[in-house]
Amino acid sequence: MGNSFGKLFKITTFGESHGVALGVTIEGCPAGLEIDENFIRTEMQRRKPGQSKITTQRKEEDEIEILSGVFEGKSTGTPIGIVIRNADQKSKDYSHIADKFRPSHADYTYFEKYGIRDYRGGGRSSARETAARVAAGAVAKMLLAHKGIEIQAYVSQVGGLALEKSYQELDLSKTEDNIVRCPDPVVAEEMIELIDSVRKDRDTIGGVVSCVIKNTPAGLGEPVFDRLHAELGKAMLGINAVKGFEYGSGFEGVKMRGSQHNDPFVKEGDQIKTTTNYSGGIQGGISNGEDIYFRVAFKPVATIMQDQESVNEAGDVVTVSGKGRHDPCVVPRAVPIVEAMAALVIADYLLLAKSNKLVDL
Amino acid sequence: MGNSFGKLFKITTFGESHGVALGVTIEGCPAGLEIDENFIRTEMQRRKPGQSKITTQRKEEDEIEILSGVFEGKSTGTPIGIVIRNADQKSKDYSHIADKFRPSHADYTYFEKYGIRDYRGGGRSSARETAARVAAGAVAKMLLAHKGIEIQAYVSQVGGLALEKSYQELDLSKTEDNIVRCPDPVVAEEMIELIDSVRKDRDTIGGVVSCVIKNTPAGLGEPVFDRLHAELGKAMLGINAVKGFEYGSGFEGVKMRGSQHNDPFVKEGDQIKTTTNYSGGIQGGISNGEDIYFRVAFKPVATIMQDQESVNEAGDVVTVSGKGRHDPCVVPRAVPIVEAMAALVIADYLLLAKSNKLVDL
Amino acid sequence: MGNSFGKLFKITTFGESHGVALGVTIEGCPAGLEIDENFIRTEMQRRKPGQSKITTQRKEEDEIEILSGVFEGKSTGTPIGIVIRNADQKSKDYSHIADKFRPSHADYTYFEKYGIRDYRGGGRSSARETAARVAAGAVAKMLLAHKGIEIQAYVSQVGGLALEKSYQELDLSKTEDNIVRCPDPVVAEEMIELIDSVRKDRDTIGGVVSCVIKNTPAGLGEPVFDRLHAELGKAMLGINAVKGFEYGSGFEGVKMRGSQHNDPFVKEGDQIKTTTNYSGGIQGGISNGEDIYFRVAFKPVATIMQDQESVNEAGDVVTVSGKGRHDPCVVPRAVPIVEAMAALVIADYLLLAKSNKLVDL
Amino acid sequence: MGNSFGKLFKITTFGESHGVALGVTIEGCPAGLEIDENFIRTEMQRRKPGQSKITTQRKEEDEIEILSGVFEGKSTGTPIGIVIRNADQKSKDYSHIADKFRPSHADYTYFEKYGIRDYRGGGRSSARETAARVAAGAVAKMLLAHKGIEIQAYVSQVGGLALEKSYQELDLSKTEDNIVRCPDPVVAEEMIELIDSVRKDRDTIGGVVSCVIKNTPAGLGEPVFDRLHAELGKAMLGINAVKGFEYGSGFEGVKMRGSQHNDPFVKEGDQIKTTTNYSGGIQGGISNGEDIYFRVAFKPVATIMQDQESVNEAGDVVTVSGKGRHDPCVVPRAVPIVEAMAALVIADYLLLAKSNKLVDL
Repeated sequence: MGNSFGKLFKITTFGESHGVALGVTIEGCPAGLEIDENFIRTEMQRRKPGQSKITTQRKEEDEIEILSGVFEGKSTGTPIGIVIRNADQKSKDYSHIADKFRPSHADYTYFEKYGIRDYRGGGRSSARETAARVAAGAVAKMLLAHKGIEIQAYVSQVGGLALEKSYQELDLSKTEDNIVRCPDPVVAEEMIELIDSVRKDRDTIGGVVSCVIKNTPAGLGEPVFDRLHAELGKAMLGINAVKGFEYGSGFEGVKMRGSQHNDPFVKEGDQIKTTTNYSGGIQGGISNGEDIYFRVAFKPVATIMQDQESVNEAGDVVTVSGKGRHDPCVVPRAVPIVEAMAALVIADYLLLAKSNKLVDL
Repeated sequence: MGNSFGKLFKITTFGESHGVALGVTIEGCPAGLEIDENFIRTEMQRRKPGQSKITTQRKEEDEIEILSGVFEGKSTGTPIGIVIRNADQKSKDYSHIADKFRPSHADYTYFEKYGIRDYRGGGRSSARETAARVAAGAVAKMLLAHKGIEIQAYVSQVGGLALEKSYQELDLSKTEDNIVRCPDPVVAEEMIELIDSVRKDRDTIGGVVSCVIKNTPAGLGEPVFDRLHAELGKAMLGINAVKGFEYGSGFEGVKMRGSQHNDPFVKEGDQIKTTTNYSGGIQGGISNGEDIYFRVAFKPVATIMQDQESVNEAGDVVTVSGKGRHDPCVVPRAVPIVEAMAALVIADYLLLAKSNKLVDL
Repeated sequence: MGNSFGKLFKITTFGESHGVALGVTIEGCPAGLEIDENFIRTEMQRRKPGQSKITTQRKEEDEIEILSGVFEGKSTGTPIGIVIRNADQKSKDYSHIADKFRPSHADYTYFEKYGIRDYRGGGRSSARETAARVAAGAVAKMLLAHKGIEIQAYVSQVGGLALEKSYQELDLSKTEDNIVRCPDPVVAEEMIELIDSVRKDRDTIGGVVSCVIKNTPAGLGEPVFDRLHAELGKAMLGINAVKGFEYGSGFEGVKMRGSQHNDPFVKEGDQIKTTTNYSGGIQGGISNGEDIYFRVAFKPVATIMQDQESVNEAGDVVTVSGKGRHDPCVVPRAVPIVEAMAALVIADYLLLAKSNKLVDL
Repeated sequence: MGNSFGKLFKITTFGESHGVALGVTIEGCPAGLEIDENFIRTEMQRRKPGQSKITTQRKEEDEIEILSGVFEGKSTGTPIGIVIRNADQKSKDYSHIADKFRPSHADYTYFEKYGIRDYRGGGRSSARETAARVAAGAVAKMLLAHKGIEIQAYVSQVGGLALEKSYQELDLSKTEDNIVRCPDPVVAEEMIELIDSVRKDRDTIGGVVSCVIKNTPAGLGEPVFDRLHAELGKAMLGINAVKGFEYGSGFEGVKMRGSQHNDPFVKEGDQIKTTTNYSGGIQGGISNGEDIYFRVAFKPVATIMQDQESVNEAGDVVTVSGKGRHDPCVVPRAVPIVEAMAALVIADYLLLAKSNKLVDL
């Protein structure tokens, strides 16, 4: 339980940080979609470690191999199996923590739940597992591209350093121009400096990833429990290190009055639109055709390059020493993960919406 | 799709605001649990309309009828069917909006999704549906009580008026002492005044509900996608008017450094505990035995007692007039709903955790 | 777990034989379908007890009440809640078996599973629960009728008395002309006599229901585990008293050679057809457009009007006396239940097939 | 949809006959189970092609590679990923049927469903996919062995040649002593001769696999839709070439009277047992602790070594020539597949039954 995501466009992942391989099975991808392996590889590059001075220096190529479900370059409707071998395992980096519970990691909770754990690099709890999601998300993105739907995430905050501008005021096409993935080049530079200084302190820091989904048709969402934003929220909260999710007006919106917050409907040409979008493109849990936007809070990474006191399985006091190669801040590498999970949600809800009306059968 | 919640302890709801009845089927409640109907009724009273001057003045008794699954006062393991008849329907209140799209309601999106809609009082999109959840949540609470698990929600913010104190500094037993359900009697009074003034302006305002879950055993949660906080987040985002969810350090935590944010493990007597709890009782998506706490943002209610411009199904400009009897602020009545959904999540994950270890089989 | 059936067109039932009411929630019915309540009632009449001398003489009107999901005569896409009150409960008929395990009933297994049970008339294990399925199946039938799909079941065997003719040689429109629901009037008469003589012996007898589904489009089915016939099989095996399921050539087909059994493809007009249909309209778990046909074996009802030796909860030897009013043979009343479950499967797979191809999105 | 099986102990498979690899992800295996890779390999050998003169002569080693979920020889509770590379693909064997629909194969139905298909050796519809199930089933068997549960299948019929004896009269430990997997050595010899003569006729023939499950505890099964036998039936009907399933008294039982068919309860020592077992170990969809037994009908394999007339995608008449290396009768190799699927069902229901009673929480 817990390794699958989605209902019709559904993925199931397996794999530990330092096991033989990670993998994902993608079910429900409609047949006839051109599968561009290079695009999947490009997405993997955006997530992979070692891509810049502000990410972990681990080297993993994250090479994908498609095992099934694609024939002569197109999806066949059968499950797409993908594996990603773990090349740079360096298990000895982790032997020193075999029976220790690292603070704010999942060591203790996995041990309590299962009575046994793969302690190498966090095992299944490692963010390395998200590589499988990015591969699957790339397939979902190709499906969405077919419908004109675009997903763009970017770093909007690092520590206390936040973008003031809304997504409409930014040129999101510049997001990939810098290593922190912030579309404002000036703020990006400050963010990079901040992360670099945190890294030099052998510490870590949190951040926020914002995301915009454009051109979603109206009608996606499955109330009452599987509202579109509830599933987006779950998708984001299921990413390592995430502590919060808000969409549209979010937590700030609670201060507003209804008369300000309501989004007036107007007709523009053939289409019904809203003049403001505090709703974040979703009303009653169903997309209304406006931009969907949301924000995701990431805590500071728990692995720090400092000594920390903790306990081991026996309950003895021990020192956990910071070793290995870790990210001082996860948000630059989290951008493609947020996009991948958003793509998976939208692809799934697109398929779910095919049987809503009798006239469409 | 979308009307069920949970995997083993699972509910399915039906019903519209102004249909014949609402209902819920509860599956997976372990056999032998004493079902106290009066407790369910008490919970229903906390949610029902018309309970104070700061809630809607609609009168609905929300009387429950248990149709199955309980025999001689105990659960039998078979599904518990509950119905709640809609007494005070007053459908004529809604005839004036039959073909109009009320701003920031679900009228337009339901129409786009289904091509047809029950316009009376929002139909299925009405928060009235949450009555069924509160009934089911009451059963889940009885199960949790059997394990000593307690869930307490309270109003921590109305508009810009926020409690400064953390839940540890508050006496949560005072929550039900005032009509706004804020455990600080002084702030509660201010909140009530604020809501009352908003009501007199024929407007609405948002708020925040905070929630604490105590005595959860370590080991609950189903990584990687169904992390305990991801499911809690989905549960909360599935409540009407919710725009955001954060747990533990939440959005504020992004400003912290790892060295501050990490929760050190220590041994206290027989138990492994943490000295701080920025993790919010959940690490790697699995409960660690510390208090679980989270915050839920509610937007200002979309129904305001003012004229608003909008369009109808034909796209013509129309005026939507505020009529009927509505809540100026939902958070006081949202407190039991938040608790109910939290109880459903914890009950479900408690059952899911029964088969984690071979030694327990 | 276990009270829901279907994935997109999905039902959840609740209710015990002698509880307050039975009920069903139907999710996923496409919006805009005209819901003919009279048709549902007609289907209920076909299943209800007391309809002829060869069925139980219990009187239950099985009156349905639609609580939600239908507005101005049409489905709205939201869940359709239906309840059926238990009018003629006569619980005292069952007090004599409160702690006894009736042979070949579910008394012992429910007790072992749950440690508690509603002993009145079998509780949840009673075939009375199928009333809820027939109501839901009627809605599914209305959806299928919209696509021209027809489902016709009939009694093909009672005890050792079997119809020799295949369904193609029979006039299925005559099925409802007699009380045993066998389309051959001569054999029907013999079956009725046989059941009546068994009834006079205070005994029961088994039978077979055959079913044909016509006009199903090619392409329905979800290999590899959810093949169309696997789901049909599960649906049938989930009906009380069913011991076997076979489709197409079935158990007899094992004696054939591939060269005989293979169904040759030919083109007829625009359509690809097969000249024989040993496949039973399903190849590789997917419908091919030919008639789907299958057979369902029902054991003799366990409740007999004779004294039987058994044990009680304490393990003491006890006598179970046949009381109450029961069916000497279930197959006449099982015909609408088989049809209902078949309709639910086909409706569900029809919706699932909407997203198979990219070109259809 | 359709590539997963099970609820708590759950598998998801991918892979085509002539793609790069097959694979399976096993979720929910309780942590701490010793995983004996050699046992998995032994099970794979029982299913693999080329094992005797009466099976296909294709050579596939079906070597498994465990990619995750096992650490230091034990399951960790995280998903177990297994891949099986396709070594002996010989795709050119299939080029001659690229656009032809082979009679009684899934060529036509996959094409209708998806508009595209991997024609090489049946693609996803090939029984080769069951290799992944046997690997997963081996893990389930190891879990069941831990609880003392045993599953034994055997060939009970080939063509018209059927074992007369019931499983109680046979020595099932002799099943693996001959290549047809029939525990009666005399009948086995006749079956082998029959299959060999059919093979020489360049034809195929059907058969029946019987299966017995011993030592299942009482209480497994999830009524009303997920009865234990309904899920077993679905599991079996989901195996390639299966046309029928019956358990306990099955189709023959319909001829019996209730007074004969009912299984009397008696107390033996501490345990409640039944003196007969027409119920097949399942009452009301829940195991009663007696032996569970069932029969599965397999049609003659559709691939025959003869020329057959058919049509191609354009609807033109074409000749399909029998080429490649195929099984004249599938039942000998189906024995481990039936056992694997039965093991998966029982393992899943064992876990599901952990939360039935309040006293067990």
